[in-house]
Amino acid sequence: MRYAVLGAGKRLRPLLVLAAAEAVGGQREAALRAACAVELIHAYSLAHDDMPCMDNDVLRRGKPTLHVQYGEAQAMLAGDAMQALAFDVLTPDEGLAPALQAKLCRLLARASGYDGMAGGQAIDLASIGKPLDEAALRDMHRRKTGVLLQASVLMGAASGDLPAAAWEALSRYGAAIGLAFQVVDDILDVTQDSDVLGKTAGKDQDNNKPTYVSVLGLEPARAYALRLRDEAHQALAASGLADTAWLSLLADKVVERDN
Amino acid sequence: MRYAVLGAGKRLRPLLVLAAAEAVGGQREAALRAACAVELIHAYSLAHDDMPCMDNDVLRRGKPTLHVQYGEAQAMLAGDAMQALAFDVLTPDEGLAPALQAKLCRLLARASGYDGMAGGQAIDLASIGKPLDEAALRDMHRRKTGVLLQASVLMGAASGDLPAAAWEALSRYGAAIGLAFQVVDDILDVTQDSDVLGKTAGKDQDNNKPTYVSVLGLEPARAYALRLRDEAHQALAASGLADTAWLSLLADKVVERDN
Repeated sequence: MRYAVLGAGKRLRPLLVLAAAEAVGGQREAALRAACAVELIHAYSLAHDDMPCMDNDVLRRGKPTLHVQYGEAQAMLAGDAMQALAFDVLTPDEGLAPALQAKLCRLLARASGYDGMAGGQAIDLASIGKPLDEAALRDMHRRKTGVLLQASVLMGAASGDLPAAAWEALSRYGAAIGLAFQVVDDILDVTQDSDVLGKTAGKDQDNNKPTYVSVLGLEPARAYALRLRDEAHQALAASGLADTAWLSLLADKVVERDN
Repeated sequence: MRYAVLGAGKRLRPLLVLAAAEAVGGQREAALRAACAVELIHAYSLAHDDMPCMDNDVLRRGKPTLHVQYGEAQAMLAGDAMQALAFDVLTPDEGLAPALQAKLCRLLARASGYDGMAGGQAIDLASIGKPLDEAALRDMHRRKTGVLLQASVLMGAASGDLPAAAWEALSRYGAAIGLAFQVVDDILDVTQDSDVLGKTAGKDQDNNKPTYVSVLGLEPARAYALRLRDEAHQALAASGLADTAWLSLLADKVVERDN
């Protein structure tokens, strides 16, 4: 579990939690726990996704993947235990209001399960070698990646009090950067090498997976990512929240990153 | 997910939740949600446990195992999504007090993770072919099986109001039947055939796993199971709760079952 979660990594999801908490003046304890929980879910999903029965990948965050290092059975179990730990971290005996614990568990459970990340992975698997139109591709990516990124923003927002309109605006921000993240991932997969990415480059094409690049083309995909970034900025402007500087910066980083 | 969770099965964990809820006069909605959640966790653990990298089993609840039916990747993802669904079920938008939602999530997360079920599985894996003394065997089984059975009792208990002494007594009851369940499992593995069990018989021996039968011998293991059943009954008597008939019956069933 330590190997999978404490190594390198962009920590984008925890940063989104903390940036959203900053924007709403949220409780530090709640925000830190939520940040750890989303990273645990993300790290477990990578460990399972890299397994031989899934993407069969050997390189992750610049190191051998978890199953290469510790064997498949321990990698699967470590992933299972990381998912449980995410909910454990959100439900301490003391120091976090029970109603907030419940809300954070609700947001995380829905983003991780059949209607979110795991469901998106299942659609992804079932789509190998099949043509997807842009709507189907967007639905798959929204579940697989976007929903957990959006949940990261909302979990950070839940750590404070905010008007419903601001919650809606942050939800739109989260949806836009969630989709932008995946569009950029698809671009990087074909434009960067494995050293820069810290994971195997070109594997979408090798696996014959539909991507934004294969569906839209490279330049239209780039333009789409920039439009989504602008949508994210517009949502922040509409939120009425004063301190959205970190969220704004993260929207830029999601699109401008090179790994 | 439906194939893994809605087929045959003893439903022991949900029954324990409901019996404990009955004993404490708990809320029906909370008890039913908790019952579904523990069964989802149990079903996901079976699906992952049966995978080729773990026990590599082909028969479960009288049917082909999940990965045999749908492939390894979908079996792993369905298990992952079942774990998330367990926490989703415990955190509805309405109808269940948020403080109780948080408490149920806490009990379930701790029982499922590194210090409970998943951790016990990892110790189990690491113990294949190694001699374990009875204390080490008990610790492994407590985590692997006992803690979730105990949590089922406590989640049912949490659906009502009860004095701390009764909570402690139900905790002892849960620990006793949790251990008894595993002792009996080890006995059935060598005394029953696969048809009766609905899963592959004799596989502990085939896998060279330490069991209560291999450590204590068959007759001493039987005597131990009966002592644990008596401990469970004594705990119920000490609980001061009026309506423990179902819990009492389940303690007998755990020991007297033939599959």
